[in-house]
Amino acid sequence: MSTHRYSEEEIAAVYRVIAERRDMRHFLPDPVAPEVLSRILQVAHQAPSVGLMQPWRFIRITDANMRQAIHKLVDEERIQTAYAIGENENADRMAEFLRLKVEGILECGELLVATLCDKRDAHVFGRRTLPEMDIASVSCAIQNMWLAARAEGLGMGWVSIFDPIKLGALLHMPQDAKPIAVLCLGHVSTFYKSPMLVETGWKQPRPLADMVMENTWKPHA
Amino acid sequence: MSTHRYSEEEIAAVYRVIAERRDMRHFLPDPVAPEVLSRILQVAHQAPSVGLMQPWRFIRITDANMRQAIHKLVDEERIQTAYAIGENENADRMAEFLRLKVEGILECGELLVATLCDKRDAHVFGRRTLPEMDIASVSCAIQNMWLAARAEGLGMGWVSIFDPIKLGALLHMPQDAKPIAVLCLGHVSTFYKSPMLVETGWKQPRPLADMVMENTWKPHA
Repeated sequence: MSTHRYSEEEIAAVYRVIAERRDMRHFLPDPVAPEVLSRILQVAHQAPSVGLMQPWRFIRITDANMRQAIHKLVDEERIQTAYAIGENENADRMAEFLRLKVEGILECGELLVATLCDKRDAHVFGRRTLPEMDIASVSCAIQNMWLAARAEGLGMGWVSIFDPIKLGALLHMPQDAKPIAVLCLGHVSTFYKSPMLVETGWKQPRPLADMVMENTWKPHA
Repeated sequence: MSTHRYSEEEIAAVYRVIAERRDMRHFLPDPVAPEVLSRILQVAHQAPSVGLMQPWRFIRITDANMRQAIHKLVDEERIQTAYAIGENENADRMAEFLRLKVEGILECGELLVATLCDKRDAHVFGRRTLPEMDIASVSCAIQNMWLAARAEGLGMGWVSIFDPIKLGALLHMPQDAKPIAVLCLGHVSTFYKSPMLVETGWKQPRPLADMVMENTWKPHA
């Protein structure tokens, strides 16, 4: 056993928060306390980043008109996604998608847009063959936020249903920066017991055993 | 205050593990207990995923020759990266990069390759305009592993210095799957107090204040 191991209580807390974190779309309108928001942004900044690039940027949306404009943009893409699901699968599936709640932009206490920074080409370390490692770093930052929020009793939802070019233009972002998440953060009435897409019957999860192979690619099923 | 809030002790454990997680490159050769490896893979599988896509696949490397072959491939790309840093910056910086330890592939107790699954085009939900959300989901899974490993007293390192096409071929992966991480997991002598790239003087981190804006893109500096 490692001497660096945390106490059993601490380990249990880490496993608990990982298990109970949910991608939330239902929020209460109560405000998020500023010190809690500050702590949640701080953990984003403690994430690992490729070559210490720190590619994450956060735009806090406090303007009600801007919040409305972001919601409109997401809703436009929701319709486009519905058509695409109709084409890819069938009309029933399209209708089913349109009945899902996919975001809580207008209700949540805090709205943040997470973006990749500009001038990323200057960063070669760990990205020469995998430039997408910048997205990986920002995603780790967002996962930290999700976990800290859950421990604080707050829900968070990652919305990726938007046109990044249109959202970048709306937020006056430089062309080489890119929004990758609209983050809804706030108080919730209850946390989903299972992922909402499982609870609603949209999709059944596959077991871990299907995901793990040994030495070479040999899928389980 | 939210009624869903964890106890102060649990919250402290969550913030502790986020703050103390490090991207490790120095390992002890001791084996990782199978039940610990199993718990760490389980938290990967508890990550959020876009449209419940579960795009993560893990290849556990138990064959010593395969481990050597992966190391060789990473070392080839390390040299290519050094040249690219030389071109982008200067020869001193190239020499400095070549002195850094960038991976612990041959020493760590467990070696895993994390990959994106095949047949991803079928998944439209949350990816029509942002197909890279599959990488985001696998990154959240890896961040969960990193945090659980730290609580268990183990270090993990994410190596992205490799040619994904060559690594995919080595592991007999389908052409539409893609490796994004070589994960070194294992016991460590000590955890870096700060990120290794800060400790070695490779790079100075920027403060969070530089990363947060309000309503539109307005960088701090």
